[in-house]
Amino acid sequence: MIRVAIIGAGGYTGVESIEILLRHPEAKLTYLTAQQEFGRAADIYPQLAGRCELAIEPLDLDKLGKLADVALCCLPHKVSMSMVPKMLAAGVKVVDFSADYRIRDLATYEKYYEPHTDKENLAHAVYGLPELFRDQIKGARLVANPGCYPTGASLALAPLLKNNLIKPTGIVLSSVSGVSGGGKKPTPGFHFPYMNENMYAYSVGVHRHMPEMEQVASDVAGKPVELLFQPHVGPFDRGIFTSAYCDPIAPISPDTLKKTYQDFYKGEQFVQILSAPPAVKNVARTNYVHIFPTFAKGKVVVFSVIDNLIKGASGQAIQNMNIIFGLDETLGLK
Amino acid sequence: MIRVAIIGAGGYTGVESIEILLRHPEAKLTYLTAQQEFGRAADIYPQLAGRCELAIEPLDLDKLGKLADVALCCLPHKVSMSMVPKMLAAGVKVVDFSADYRIRDLATYEKYYEPHTDKENLAHAVYGLPELFRDQIKGARLVANPGCYPTGASLALAPLLKNNLIKPTGIVLSSVSGVSGGGKKPTPGFHFPYMNENMYAYSVGVHRHMPEMEQVASDVAGKPVELLFQPHVGPFDRGIFTSAYCDPIAPISPDTLKKTYQDFYKGEQFVQILSAPPAVKNVARTNYVHIFPTFAKGKVVVFSVIDNLIKGASGQAIQNMNIIFGLDETLGLK
Amino acid sequence: MIRVAIIGAGGYTGVESIEILLRHPEAKLTYLTAQQEFGRAADIYPQLAGRCELAIEPLDLDKLGKLADVALCCLPHKVSMSMVPKMLAAGVKVVDFSADYRIRDLATYEKYYEPHTDKENLAHAVYGLPELFRDQIKGARLVANPGCYPTGASLALAPLLKNNLIKPTGIVLSSVSGVSGGGKKPTPGFHFPYMNENMYAYSVGVHRHMPEMEQVASDVAGKPVELLFQPHVGPFDRGIFTSAYCDPIAPISPDTLKKTYQDFYKGEQFVQILSAPPAVKNVARTNYVHIFPTFAKGKVVVFSVIDNLIKGASGQAIQNMNIIFGLDETLGLK
Amino acid sequence: MIRVAIIGAGGYTGVESIEILLRHPEAKLTYLTAQQEFGRAADIYPQLAGRCELAIEPLDLDKLGKLADVALCCLPHKVSMSMVPKMLAAGVKVVDFSADYRIRDLATYEKYYEPHTDKENLAHAVYGLPELFRDQIKGARLVANPGCYPTGASLALAPLLKNNLIKPTGIVLSSVSGVSGGGKKPTPGFHFPYMNENMYAYSVGVHRHMPEMEQVASDVAGKPVELLFQPHVGPFDRGIFTSAYCDPIAPISPDTLKKTYQDFYKGEQFVQILSAPPAVKNVARTNYVHIFPTFAKGKVVVFSVIDNLIKGASGQAIQNMNIIFGLDETLGLK
Repeated sequence: MIRVAIIGAGGYTGVESIEILLRHPEAKLTYLTAQQEFGRAADIYPQLAGRCELAIEPLDLDKLGKLADVALCCLPHKVSMSMVPKMLAAGVKVVDFSADYRIRDLATYEKYYEPHTDKENLAHAVYGLPELFRDQIKGARLVANPGCYPTGASLALAPLLKNNLIKPTGIVLSSVSGVSGGGKKPTPGFHFPYMNENMYAYSVGVHRHMPEMEQVASDVAGKPVELLFQPHVGPFDRGIFTSAYCDPIAPISPDTLKKTYQDFYKGEQFVQILSAPPAVKNVARTNYVHIFPTFAKGKVVVFSVIDNLIKGASGQAIQNMNIIFGLDETLGLK
Repeated sequence: MIRVAIIGAGGYTGVESIEILLRHPEAKLTYLTAQQEFGRAADIYPQLAGRCELAIEPLDLDKLGKLADVALCCLPHKVSMSMVPKMLAAGVKVVDFSADYRIRDLATYEKYYEPHTDKENLAHAVYGLPELFRDQIKGARLVANPGCYPTGASLALAPLLKNNLIKPTGIVLSSVSGVSGGGKKPTPGFHFPYMNENMYAYSVGVHRHMPEMEQVASDVAGKPVELLFQPHVGPFDRGIFTSAYCDPIAPISPDTLKKTYQDFYKGEQFVQILSAPPAVKNVARTNYVHIFPTFAKGKVVVFSVIDNLIKGASGQAIQNMNIIFGLDETLGLK
Repeated sequence: MIRVAIIGAGGYTGVESIEILLRHPEAKLTYLTAQQEFGRAADIYPQLAGRCELAIEPLDLDKLGKLADVALCCLPHKVSMSMVPKMLAAGVKVVDFSADYRIRDLATYEKYYEPHTDKENLAHAVYGLPELFRDQIKGARLVANPGCYPTGASLALAPLLKNNLIKPTGIVLSSVSGVSGGGKKPTPGFHFPYMNENMYAYSVGVHRHMPEMEQVASDVAGKPVELLFQPHVGPFDRGIFTSAYCDPIAPISPDTLKKTYQDFYKGEQFVQILSAPPAVKNVARTNYVHIFPTFAKGKVVVFSVIDNLIKGASGQAIQNMNIIFGLDETLGLK
Repeated sequence: MIRVAIIGAGGYTGVESIEILLRHPEAKLTYLTAQQEFGRAADIYPQLAGRCELAIEPLDLDKLGKLADVALCCLPHKVSMSMVPKMLAAGVKVVDFSADYRIRDLATYEKYYEPHTDKENLAHAVYGLPELFRDQIKGARLVANPGCYPTGASLALAPLLKNNLIKPTGIVLSSVSGVSGGGKKPTPGFHFPYMNENMYAYSVGVHRHMPEMEQVASDVAGKPVELLFQPHVGPFDRGIFTSAYCDPIAPISPDTLKKTYQDFYKGEQFVQILSAPPAVKNVARTNYVHIFPTFAKGKVVVFSVIDNLIKGASGQAIQNMNIIFGLDETLGLK
C-alpha cells in the first residue's frame, strides 16, 4: 500500500486527488495539508462526508517523511519550488502540479514566470506526460505534472510531429476550458452572473502554457516547433476542448492519418482515437483523452478533449504515481 | 422630458436601470454616480458601448439637484438612509432600491436590519408596488421600491388575501432565485464552479424579505398575516420562481379562483394570469409577472415568476417613476 | 462474483448502472440489452470507450437465465410488468426501476398509472429503500427500486413520522429536479434553449410519485399520512433538492430534532445529517443523501438532496443488489 | 409607418423579430404566418403575453400583399425560394433569412445546398451585411440576410482584407455558437442533459457558411480568398465567439492595426472596436458586434462576438429593412 500525502489539499486539484485516491486499491491517503483552511476534510468539503476522516493540517516536514511515500504537491508555482526541495529531503517522492519543474529552459521559465530558486531539482525533474515520456517517469523522484492545456494539446499533436507529417511552424491551437481551470478563488471573471451564458478569450499570445507546449512539441518532433496557443473560457465546469490547425508537409490520406494515430497510441489505456468530433462531456470526470484527427480545406485538423482536473491534473498525477511505483498505471482511474 | 439620476450605478440594478432608461421615450439619463468605480460608463460596462456616453462620478448633491428631477437610488441599505435625506433636500424625488424605507414598523426594521437613522422620511415613504398601492405612489416624494422576492410573492397572494379566501397563517412561500439576485460581488457561494450545476437553500426562517412580505400581506388582508418564506438559489442568471402553498378558508371552485385573479388584476399592464404553470424564462428581461393559481391536495397553490432585476428592481422602479410623474406607467417597459 | 444483466441499457439509468458496475469489486456485467439501439456499448456511449467491451443486444430470456444472477431492469413502467415475470421465471433476481411494483394498493396504482398485469409478483415485491426496509430486501426475489423524488422525500420525513413528531396532514414537499430526471428523449421542454436559464413547475397535484411517497410515509408512521408533493425542474443535469414543510405536533427543541435524525440514521453509510442547508452539487454523482432538519416560523423544515440518477435510481439499485446477495452494501458505491 | 409581415413566425428568428418590432417606432407588425402552429401568438409564446395581440395564420399571399409593405421571411432554405417569388409578386419587399439568395455562384450553392429553383430573383438579390454593402441594400427589393457565423466572421476580417494586410489563404476561423443557433427543434445533440456542461465541434470542413464567408471575403478583398471555418457549439443560449487567425503580408504595427479597424468602421453604429478580448455576454440581446484585433506569435488574431439571433439574424434583418425604407438604420435596435 503506497502512502500518499496531498500538499495543498484546499484547492480543486487537491480535492479531486482525494476523491480518486479514496477509490485507489493500492494507495492510501495518510496526510493532508493546506496553507490556510484547517480541520476535518469532510467538514470543509461536504462532498467528502462519510468518505474521508482525515484532517487537513499545516505542513510538517517531519510528519510528511514519516507518514508518506509520495507527495502530490498541489501548491501554486513559486510556493512549490520553495517547498519541493524540503519534501524531497524528507524522503518522499514528489509529483508536483505547479509549473515550477515543467520547463527545462531557465530563461524561458523566468520570462513567463519568475526567478527560479531550485535549479538543482529542476535538472532532474521529469515531465509527467506518460503517453510520451513513460520511461523517464519510471524511476523519477520528482515528476512535473503537465499543465491542463498542454496535456490535451500535446497528445493531439504528438503523432503528427513524431512522424514529421506537419510543418513545425504556423500551428494554431485554439482551446476552450471549463471554469474550474481558473481555480477556487472567487473573481469577477468567474462570478456566476458574469461567466454564465458567456465565453471569452484571454492571455492572447502570452499564455504560460504556450512555451510548455512548444517544449513538448519540440521534444517529440526532434526539432524546434513553434505554435500559437489561444485559450478561451466557456460556461461549463470541466473539460478542455482543443482544436488544432496544422499545415501538412505533404498530402496525407485519411487512412494514413487515422492509422498514424492508432499506431502511435497503440496499447495506451487512456487515449481513444475517434471517427467523429469528440465532446467534452464524454470525458468529464475521467482520465481519458478523446482525439479525432481529420482534414479540412487543406489543413490537418485535430480535436482533443480532456477533463482539465483529471487527465489535466489529478488523474494524470496519480497515473504518474502509479508508474513511479511500478503499479498498474490505471489503478484508481478506470 | 424627466431628468433621471442613478445613484449607485455600479451594481446590477444600476446598470439595468441605465439599459431601461436608454429606451425610455420621456425620460433622460442626466447623472450617474457610484461609490467606487468612476469613468465612462461604457468603458466600465462594455455592454453599454455605443449607447451611453455618460461618465460615472462621485455623488455631488448640488449637481444632483441641478441635473435631475428624480434619483433612482441603488445604494445598499444603511448607506441609503444616510443619503436619501440629503437627496430629498436637494430637491429631487427618490425611488429607493434599499430596504431602508420599506418597513413601517421600526422595531421590525431594527430587528432584521439595524438602527434606523431617518425616521422622518420613513414616516412618509410609500411602498412602491404599483399593482397594490398605485394611488399612494402618485404624489409621493419618496418611494421604497419593493424587494425582489416580496414582489413576486405579494402579487401571488394578494387576490386571495384581499378576498379572504385563505387562512392568514401557515402560508408557505418557497422561492428559487437566479444568481444575479446575490449582487455583483464575487463570493465563494456564487463562484461559477460552485454555483453551476448546484442549488441550495439559505437564510432559513430569518430572511429579511419575510417581514416585508408579512407587512404587505397584512395590509392587503386588513388583518395580521403570518407566513413562512424560504429562499433558494439556482443556477441561472435571472428570475424568481415562487411556489405558494395556502389553506383555503372554505372550498373554492376552480372558476372562482381564476376569476378572483382576473378581476383583481383587471387592467393591469404587467400581470398575466396563466392557465398552466409559468416558466421563469418567459418573463426574463421583462417587467411582467406571470401567475398561475390552482389547487392541489386541498391546498391553494399559486406560482409566480418575475425577473428579479426588472419587475423585482429596476423595471418596477421606473414603473414607479412613471407613476410619480403622471406618465403612462408602461413607458420604457414594454 | 455476481453476474449482472442490465435490461434497458439504453437510457440514462442503464448507462449509469454500467458506470457503477464497472467499478464494483464483486459484481460483473455479463449481459446488456435494450429495446432499440444495438451494438457495442462503447460505440453508442463514447463515455464508455476503453472501459466496456460488451454489446447491447435484444433481450433473450434464455441467455439472461444462463448469463446472469440478477437483472437490473431499467424498462419504463407497463413494459416492465410485461417482462419481469419472464425474467423471474428465467431464474434471475430482479431489481426493477419502474413504478410497476412500487405501489401495493392496486386501485391507487391503476388510478395513477394503468391496469396492472402482474398482480402475482406485485404481491411479493419489496420496496427497495434500504434505510427504511433493509430487512425485507435481504431475501427478496423482486425489489421495486424507489422513484427519485420519493427517495429524497421519504428519507427527509421518516425520522419525524416514525417518532410521531409531526402532524400526518398538511405536509408540503416542494422539490426541484435536474433535467436528467426527465430521461433521454429530446422534447421541447428539455430542449437546451428552452430549459437553460429556466425553471418551471409541472404535474401540479397529480404527480405519480405522490401516492408512492404517501405509501412510504404511512408505512413509517404506522398510520395514514397525507402530503402535497410539488415537483419543479431546474437548469442542471443532476440532483433533487427537496424542501419539506411540516407542522409539529408539539414543540421540539433543536437538540431533540437533530438527535432524532442522528439516532434514526445511526450506522447508515449513505445518510449524512448536516448542520446547515445542503447543496445539490455536494451529492452529485454519489449515492449519498444529505439532510438538514431545522425550524422556521413554527414549522419543521427539512431539506434533503440526492443525485437523482444514483441514490435516486442506479446507485440505490446496486445498493439493493448488494443487500440481496449479502454483500457489503457499499460495494461499488463509495 | 412601415407595415411588416413575418413569414415563418414559429421559429426563434421569427419570435425575435416580433420582439424587436414591438419596440420599433416606425414599423408595425401587421401579419404573422407560420407553417404549422396557428393561433394567438401570445398563447403560443407566453413571453409575448400582454404585448402582442396578433394571431399566427397560414400564409395567404393576397392578404400579405394587402397588409404588408415588407416581409421578413424566416422560412428554411428550399422552402424560402419556393415562396419568395410569390411574395415579391404580391408586391412586398423581402428580407430573406434563408441561405437561398446569399450565394451568387450557382454551382457553389448547389454543391452545398440543392438545385436552385429561383435563379431569376437570385440575380438581383443583395447580400444584406450593411456595414459592407449598405449602398446596394438601399434600393433593394430582395435582401438576403447573412448567416449568423458569416456576420461575425466577415466583420472581423473585412478591414484586413480591404487593406490587403493579410494573405488570402490559410485563414482559420474557429467559432463557438450558442445553442439557439441550432433552432427550435428538439434533437439529441441539443437535449439539455447532453448539451449542458458540454462542447463539441461539427461540420468539419463542410459547413455551409464557409462558402458564404469566402464570397464576402473575396468581394471585400477584390480577389479570391480561401479560408477554413470551423464551427463548435457551447452550452449557452446566445452569441457567437469567433477567433480568426491570419498571416500578415508584412509586419504591421499595433497602432496601424487598431487604426485600420477604427477607420474602416468609422461612423458605424453597431460596431465597437475594443482594446481587450470581447465577451459574448456583452453583446447578448443587442445588434452590436465587438471586435478586438491584435497579434500573437507572428499572426494577426481577431476576435469578434455577436448575438446570433440579433446581429446574426433578426436584428440585422430589421437593420436592412430600415435601410431599404430610408429610415434611421438603428430604429428598434438600440
